[in-house]
Amino acid sequence: MIKNQKINFIYGKNPVTEALLKNPKRINKIYIQKDLFFDNRMKKILDLARENKIVVKMTSLKKILQNDEELLKQNPNLQGVIASVSPIEYIELDDFLEKQKEKEGFSKLVVLDNVSDPNNFAAIIRTVAASGFDGILVSNHRAAPITSTVEKISSGAINCVPIIKTSSLSCAIDQLKKADYWVIATQMEAKDNYYEIDYTDMNFALLMGSEGKGITKTLLNKADYTVKIKSNFESLNVSTAAGIIMYEAIRQIETKK
Amino acid sequence: MIKNQKINFIYGKNPVTEALLKNPKRINKIYIQKDLFFDNRMKKILDLARENKIVVKMTSLKKILQNDEELLKQNPNLQGVIASVSPIEYIELDDFLEKQKEKEGFSKLVVLDNVSDPNNFAAIIRTVAASGFDGILVSNHRAAPITSTVEKISSGAINCVPIIKTSSLSCAIDQLKKADYWVIATQMEAKDNYYEIDYTDMNFALLMGSEGKGITKTLLNKADYTVKIKSNFESLNVSTAAGIIMYEAIRQIETKK
Repeated sequence: MIKNQKINFIYGKNPVTEALLKNPKRINKIYIQKDLFFDNRMKKILDLARENKIVVKMTSLKKILQNDEELLKQNPNLQGVIASVSPIEYIELDDFLEKQKEKEGFSKLVVLDNVSDPNNFAAIIRTVAASGFDGILVSNHRAAPITSTVEKISSGAINCVPIIKTSSLSCAIDQLKKADYWVIATQMEAKDNYYEIDYTDMNFALLMGSEGKGITKTLLNKADYTVKIKSNFESLNVSTAAGIIMYEAIRQIETKK
Repeated sequence: MIKNQKINFIYGKNPVTEALLKNPKRINKIYIQKDLFFDNRMKKILDLARENKIVVKMTSLKKILQNDEELLKQNPNLQGVIASVSPIEYIELDDFLEKQKEKEGFSKLVVLDNVSDPNNFAAIIRTVAASGFDGILVSNHRAAPITSTVEKISSGAINCVPIIKTSSLSCAIDQLKKADYWVIATQMEAKDNYYEIDYTDMNFALLMGSEGKGITKTLLNKADYTVKIKSNFESLNVSTAAGIIMYEAIRQIETKK
């Protein structure tokens, strides 16, 4: 397993509820602050835990967390509930492509190069879940590790979105192209606007780079299209940019129906 | 002056450069870490400071900052340069509307209700600057205060975007409507999709609420349109949602030309 990818705990009512609904197998145990008043959201957590036969323990959350320095340092709003979980299961690209074959319609993927900021990573996970894109492909080496922070900010979307890890984005993109995906890269210097592409008629992988570094040149060279989002200022925040293009694709698909 | 709105310092090469280019009058003094190697970006800062007759002092930045607990707590990457600045100058709605009259074409505004997260506020400021929207309207009471964090994350975009403050969003919206603006509110329960509106033919104010609370009901009742962004998951991050709708408006305007 890769360092830093282990999630020890997820915390907060919404993330724990989402994990229970979408991915209960990941949860080892749920801890609830003792002597707490149970509101409806907490009652729902208890019901879901019972359904999934997950042990619930009433205890002092501070005691449970005392070994998790990262979490304590962030001083998060626990909302009285944490869940100890197994690490997120990443999917292999082969398995993802196999699964996509069973899918009706075209497949849509986001590929992140050098996106190391956890806020951006989490926001993109959330937009992928919202928009109905099929997954996110990231590199082992240069992606933001999935931590409790990412899980919390993504509001649990992480449980709904297949996250594909690869040791080489370059090989993965070759593999995607062989599997009949078009690769669309975003670059400020591109000629075409992002809305001038027809997203409705192909499998595609949307390649986004970090705000500072952009996309690695070798990857950029593999792109079938490069597109830009026009800006009067500097580049947009990468998660905003990803959202704009993903939803343009969805708009085109919806209005074509 | 309203509490918490005072900016003491902005820090980092890009934010300081942006402030020098866009709003030099705000800068009182620039401090550069003594014994530092001057790269080209730092040389540009020195040139701009000279042009604008702003005093530059070589000193220990830690010493300068010792009274700014907020900034020190954040432990930011100062990149060897800080600028002491006057508070951001907010614009009055009257003045904004007066200025917009001189403008060619229609006026486009973002109105934020209850958006208190500084990351989101900064990202929206940046998208407003990038998209060419004309300003942001926020309430005195319930908006995220503009701090060094907001300034840093917005990459200095804050100097290019008129920020309009009002003590009553409700009155401000009435005033906008009188000035021939259409008010478009976003709401998950809306019937129409955001892309089903024609943004090209009117002045409009895009009203966005916080992720938790949404838009205050009294404001929602004043909206001429309500629109949604379809989501398979929970609501989108508010800054992503704002970006998607702003750029849909820009797309329509660009493609209509």
